[in-house]
Amino acid sequence: MNGALMMAEIREQPAMLARILEGHGPRLADVVYALRDRPPRFVLFVARGTSDHAALYAKYLVETRLGLAAGLVSPSTMTVYDSRPDLRSVLFIAVSQSGGSPDLLEPLTRARAGGAMTLAVTNAPGSPLAQAAEFHLDILAGPECAVAASKSYTAELLTLFLLVESVATGGANPAYLPARAEAVLELEGKIEALAMRYRFAEQLVVTARGYNYATARETALKLMETSYIVANAFSGADLLHGPMAMIHRGFPVLAIVPPGPGSAALQPVLQRLREIGADTLVVGDAEATRLGTVGLTLPDLGPEALSPILAILPMQQFAFHLARQRGLDPDQPRGLQKVTETW
Amino acid sequence: MNGALMMAEIREQPAMLARILEGHGPRLADVVYALRDRPPRFVLFVARGTSDHAALYAKYLVETRLGLAAGLVSPSTMTVYDSRPDLRSVLFIAVSQSGGSPDLLEPLTRARAGGAMTLAVTNAPGSPLAQAAEFHLDILAGPECAVAASKSYTAELLTLFLLVESVATGGANPAYLPARAEAVLELEGKIEALAMRYRFAEQLVVTARGYNYATARETALKLMETSYIVANAFSGADLLHGPMAMIHRGFPVLAIVPPGPGSAALQPVLQRLREIGADTLVVGDAEATRLGTVGLTLPDLGPEALSPILAILPMQQFAFHLARQRGLDPDQPRGLQKVTETW
Repeated sequence: MNGALMMAEIREQPAMLARILEGHGPRLADVVYALRDRPPRFVLFVARGTSDHAALYAKYLVETRLGLAAGLVSPSTMTVYDSRPDLRSVLFIAVSQSGGSPDLLEPLTRARAGGAMTLAVTNAPGSPLAQAAEFHLDILAGPECAVAASKSYTAELLTLFLLVESVATGGANPAYLPARAEAVLELEGKIEALAMRYRFAEQLVVTARGYNYATARETALKLMETSYIVANAFSGADLLHGPMAMIHRGFPVLAIVPPGPGSAALQPVLQRLREIGADTLVVGDAEATRLGTVGLTLPDLGPEALSPILAILPMQQFAFHLARQRGLDPDQPRGLQKVTETW
Repeated sequence: MNGALMMAEIREQPAMLARILEGHGPRLADVVYALRDRPPRFVLFVARGTSDHAALYAKYLVETRLGLAAGLVSPSTMTVYDSRPDLRSVLFIAVSQSGGSPDLLEPLTRARAGGAMTLAVTNAPGSPLAQAAEFHLDILAGPECAVAASKSYTAELLTLFLLVESVATGGANPAYLPARAEAVLELEGKIEALAMRYRFAEQLVVTARGYNYATARETALKLMETSYIVANAFSGADLLHGPMAMIHRGFPVLAIVPPGPGSAALQPVLQRLREIGADTLVVGDAEATRLGTVGLTLPDLGPEALSPILAILPMQQFAFHLARQRGLDPDQPRGLQKVTETW
């Protein structure tokens, strides 16, 4: 079957989330101990593609849960412009499924030389990136064979959540995630029917706010990779600062709004889209979906800070089914390889 | 004439750049003295829309010229999730033409309370943002009336460049910019003819690498605002990590590659686009434009670190003329106001 690899990996996620939760305390102990011993002042992330969206989620977590400034590194400042920043008292985290891209290895190596505490978060303990870092966290996704990443994304999200919550206190308990992920994946029939509606859409704007901005970005990437729709992701606020002008009556928009403060802040955007007459697919709770042209009602996803781990699941299924509707094989994205090497 | 405001402001830029350069030393003295006295460990930027692209440029400058880690703040972590980060030894820079958006004022106010040295870079010395910051730099763009920002963008770029170079040593001398800006703007006839070719394009990918990644982002925004084309900007490396799959034979791509290390790093992307048969408009020197389906040859833009101040000029003209070709008024972007208030 076209897309058998990707579908199998999408469906593995509930069991995988349970595996990551099991015994995570001991696995994280070394790095958590080091973080308590040498508390960082800033956190920097370096990543590409899907992992960059996991880093974006973690940046919000670090800012809100740890009260620390955080940034996403532009690898080219080191690989192209040869900068050697002073990174003492910085926690430098590289996120990568394969641990193999040279444009992450070089920045991590320089960060370590520049005094940072370095951590690699990968699915490959033997990879160059894992070996080069002072600390390594295995995301335990198991081998990922589909070119379009799915389970490695949620594995990165949960691993980064557990890391932050091991340092912060009083956060949400993620024990409910595996069962809820099962429940979310059961929406597949509805999603397959919805995907049919987008068979001839040529472009799509995806929007969300707060923690789920990462979900919007990852959804857009999945759609570009597998169904070749020109998908443009914006935070709700950025959408209002200019791009809203290009949205006309009937323009397809996908809004991801599981309940929480971030989604509440997206309400003015949903209202504006309604006034314009955009064709908006709202993915969220029953109340939110009423604001859309069409809706996909999700079960309760729990605290907003954890919702990105669940909200991406139906979006992975949506990308998969839209690709199939278009006669494409989600396992064979045109011109892509599993490991992209950039410098 | 449709777009008279925007065109007048585009054409003002050479004289404006000269005005910013004149006597900039004394204007910057207070903040430069403070930065030498209390050297920051980390630089954070907060901005939206066009100003966010100026902040992105400045982030590269801070990383490469000052050897400091830098980050772009997600305002929602403070405005939506109520975080109050510890920002001692941080330089916190808010960039905004109007100085009026609440979702910049709140983060800047919290940053100051959290111990950061705060700087507002605006076109409005009397604005709430300018008043709330410890330091203020006036970008001296003069009143900007067109909804689509043009001169305030290059004014922000040059002001941020002068700030960084006042702290770093041995950088490029920007004295050549006003005359070179005049020379670049003389390409207008060619650009008007080129814009006609895109009359019926429905989407466009814009790409660049390094310092000019900001140029790609700002070009995409200008096109979305004025001509409603669905424009998606990617750094060359990010384009290879997935979105390249959606590029098919004949797909319109715009690559901005003035000579320099960043553009050199884009060569593999240009090669790949050629193999696919994409319809690539290359904007750069004579050598680079040979790699495109069509080309726009620019005069020498000087050192790459300064080239974004000049490279955006023909892209502003391109957005203007494409909008006019489509029967749209560049001064009346659908549903936008000059000052966007988001929270």
